[in-house]
Amino acid sequence: MAEQTTNLKLPVDRMPALRVEPMPKDTNQYGAVFGGWVMSQVDLAGASTAMRYALSRKVVTRAVSSFTFENPIYVGDIVSFYTKIVKIGRSSITVQVDVYAERLTKADNSVDLVTQATLVYVCVGQDHKPITVQESRDQYFKEHPEFMLCLPEISQ
Amino acid sequence: MAEQTTNLKLPVDRMPALRVEPMPKDTNQYGAVFGGWVMSQVDLAGASTAMRYALSRKVVTRAVSSFTFENPIYVGDIVSFYTKIVKIGRSSITVQVDVYAERLTKADNSVDLVTQATLVYVCVGQDHKPITVQESRDQYFKEHPEFMLCLPEISQ
Amino acid sequence: MAEQTTNLKLPVDRMPALRVEPMPKDTNQYGAVFGGWVMSQVDLAGASTAMRYALSRKVVTRAVSSFTFENPIYVGDIVSFYTKIVKIGRSSITVQVDVYAERLTKADNSVDLVTQATLVYVCVGQDHKPITVQESRDQYFKEHPEFMLCLPEISQ
Amino acid sequence: MAEQTTNLKLPVDRMPALRVEPMPKDTNQYGAVFGGWVMSQVDLAGASTAMRYALSRKVVTRAVSSFTFENPIYVGDIVSFYTKIVKIGRSSITVQVDVYAERLTKADNSVDLVTQATLVYVCVGQDHKPITVQESRDQYFKEHPEFMLCLPEISQ
Amino acid sequence: MAEQTTNLKLPVDRMPALRVEPMPKDTNQYGAVFGGWVMSQVDLAGASTAMRYALSRKVVTRAVSSFTFENPIYVGDIVSFYTKIVKIGRSSITVQVDVYAERLTKADNSVDLVTQATLVYVCVGQDHKPITVQESRDQYFKEHPEFMLCLPEISQ
Amino acid sequence: MAEQTTNLKLPVDRMPALRVEPMPKDTNQYGAVFGGWVMSQVDLAGASTAMRYALSRKVVTRAVSSFTFENPIYVGDIVSFYTKIVKIGRSSITVQVDVYAERLTKADNSVDLVTQATLVYVCVGQDHKPITVQESRDQYFKEHPEFMLCLPEISQ
Repeated sequence: MAEQTTNLKLPVDRMPALRVEPMPKDTNQYGAVFGGWVMSQVDLAGASTAMRYALSRKVVTRAVSSFTFENPIYVGDIVSFYTKIVKIGRSSITVQVDVYAERLTKADNSVDLVTQATLVYVCVGQDHKPITVQESRDQYFKEHPEFMLCLPEISQ
Repeated sequence: MAEQTTNLKLPVDRMPALRVEPMPKDTNQYGAVFGGWVMSQVDLAGASTAMRYALSRKVVTRAVSSFTFENPIYVGDIVSFYTKIVKIGRSSITVQVDVYAERLTKADNSVDLVTQATLVYVCVGQDHKPITVQESRDQYFKEHPEFMLCLPEISQ
Repeated sequence: MAEQTTNLKLPVDRMPALRVEPMPKDTNQYGAVFGGWVMSQVDLAGASTAMRYALSRKVVTRAVSSFTFENPIYVGDIVSFYTKIVKIGRSSITVQVDVYAERLTKADNSVDLVTQATLVYVCVGQDHKPITVQESRDQYFKEHPEFMLCLPEISQ
Repeated sequence: MAEQTTNLKLPVDRMPALRVEPMPKDTNQYGAVFGGWVMSQVDLAGASTAMRYALSRKVVTRAVSSFTFENPIYVGDIVSFYTKIVKIGRSSITVQVDVYAERLTKADNSVDLVTQATLVYVCVGQDHKPITVQESRDQYFKEHPEFMLCLPEISQ
Repeated sequence: MAEQTTNLKLPVDRMPALRVEPMPKDTNQYGAVFGGWVMSQVDLAGASTAMRYALSRKVVTRAVSSFTFENPIYVGDIVSFYTKIVKIGRSSITVQVDVYAERLTKADNSVDLVTQATLVYVCVGQDHKPITVQESRDQYFKEHPEFMLCLPEISQ
Repeated sequence: MAEQTTNLKLPVDRMPALRVEPMPKDTNQYGAVFGGWVMSQVDLAGASTAMRYALSRKVVTRAVSSFTFENPIYVGDIVSFYTKIVKIGRSSITVQVDVYAERLTKADNSVDLVTQATLVYVCVGQDHKPITVQESRDQYFKEHPEFMLCLPEISQ
């Protein structure tokens, strides 16, 4: 919950999965951005990353493994969601989401890490049953090599 | 993600911290209620419970320790959020939230457990610094015995 | 419109039909919660009560018989909607909704009655034509005795 | 709840207090526009009318005397709210609101009366105490004769 | 961006295509109404006007030719959108939208021109292909002369 | 309005000003994403770019010079807003916004250009009067060289 000015910068050479500007309608009773808004966008960021990797048309959120609120977000910040796939199970994909806020309306234009989260997604098929992630992925890339471009960094 | 009919019932003799009906505006691209909506309401339910216990005027969410999505929620369900304080730290309160959906628009009026979550809240004072939970609470109840009524069940 | 502190408490031994926390996005130009938000939630609370009683899959609002705003609602309140069926017509169900606000963010944690309303719902069948309420209900309970649990108090 | 095609037309020579197009986010679980949306806009239409008449800077809703839902509203309709002041009390103004939907997306471009409502507003001063309506109004018009233009029809 | 008091009045003898009251949820970080809200309502106002003229069941926005923000809009204003068809192409309809805000909550009840915009709409048929505007219109009016009533002013 | 599959890719080596996933609440009556939602996000993307360049704490939208809708956006798309400053006036900054949709839920994961727009922003000071862009910018960068990182491409 520290709010001191930092020398933090946005990750270089990485494309955020989402990058959003919250509005007054997204605030809570204390005037900061509502935690539920952040959770919602984190969920979307992670899900889109899992979809890109598994190339499944339908991905459902199975669990939030961890989620910490490091700093508040304010209206006027630009909030960037950087994602990284940290584990691939038989039918599950675990995504880490690091969220940074650029304080555009503050004099020092500082950047703060505001949230870190890890979520587990499961790919399901047309019949709503889990499908194997790796097979799906290997096969797809042979056919669509150009899709590589928009994949986020995968650490493992 | 099982969706079979169950004989589950809502907890008796407990008051839900929140009880909400989601609307079409709360859906995701698959037609179910958006996971972000559920997370938002879980956060509010847990926070109000922490506020009632610690009697702090300001409670902030510090972390989501766990969060599992057991079943989807649909528009037309009545969604009840039952909370239980499971741990009290020096300045933190850990709240478990069990979420049930009553399928009012289904023929069998079934009840499903849809989400279970554990969140950590921190009470902060006027100066935004953490305050000790237990002292605050003991003192308050001596002065406001009638407030007991709206306290949720505390397991530990 | 009196705003003095009261010794009012929430009804005991009753389950609210809805229990909701309004957010800044639900406010009006004066900073209080928008009357339209309250009306919306009252309508949902009454409709879910009528659905539970008549066990109809589709209930439509026919009229608001009365609706008084006794006190403003503020962001940070927990708002509980207690419902009571006050009249059962051939195909209509009249529901009274009493709305209480718990001022969690105020020092005295007071409870205020904020709204009282009476609404008329009509049960309609698959073909959108009214269906008889009592027959539907009597028959249903023979088959689903466990559903009794979630019925609200019925005064008449 | 009749939905037959009518020869109804919008009132001529009257200016609607509000004229709004509902969106998919305003729907209920049955696909029609949510009753709470209609109530919200009716409240705003009546309040703006009371404000124009009493020339008070702050008007609060005191009660809904009656409110009937005659026909459903659908996304794509243009919904016009015609208001009429029907009673002026010492500090209260009673406004009747007639709501019409133009079915722009239907082949016959029909117009339906969808809601009729009567609401009571109270003018309050800077100190939140009721102020006398008539005095305020008489005085104002002497000073601002050009304001006459945007006043709605007053039947009584 | 001038905000001086003016003697501006709403256009007489014209019916606004839309007339809406923005709420706190529609504001931006500076406390005024968000420009995106204005653009959204301008788009709806123009589209409904194009639909009325061409009597097409489906109209899509093709372009915004111009759009100037003359004055900010505040919560509590009544915002009226006056439309005029300024050009009819083979399958396109160009609509000018003039937006006025009545400052109901200001002491002088002033009226300001807040936005002027010109947008191009294209009428498309059931098969999503453009349809000719004029033919469609000429034919329709022979059959539905009563529809004339709700047409906005057409300058050319 | 062409909807054929393309070989289009997202711009490489550029950071989108915003990257957002629209939800069902953002749709219009035809099931596509509402044009007003797109305009809103384009406005935010352009404004944040102007703020980054001019380093003004307050930027207001002065005009939309052009805005074309090339393809519809659907729920489930990831929508990226790429911005470029195309003109710097004495106190105004003109920003071009190119919007791409990645069709994640389509089998071919195609990318479409959905909107192109040019907007004019004006930097204003604490006293709401325009400030000179270039001076402000030159001075700032001497003091905050690390801020360069998050600046979008500037063509002119």
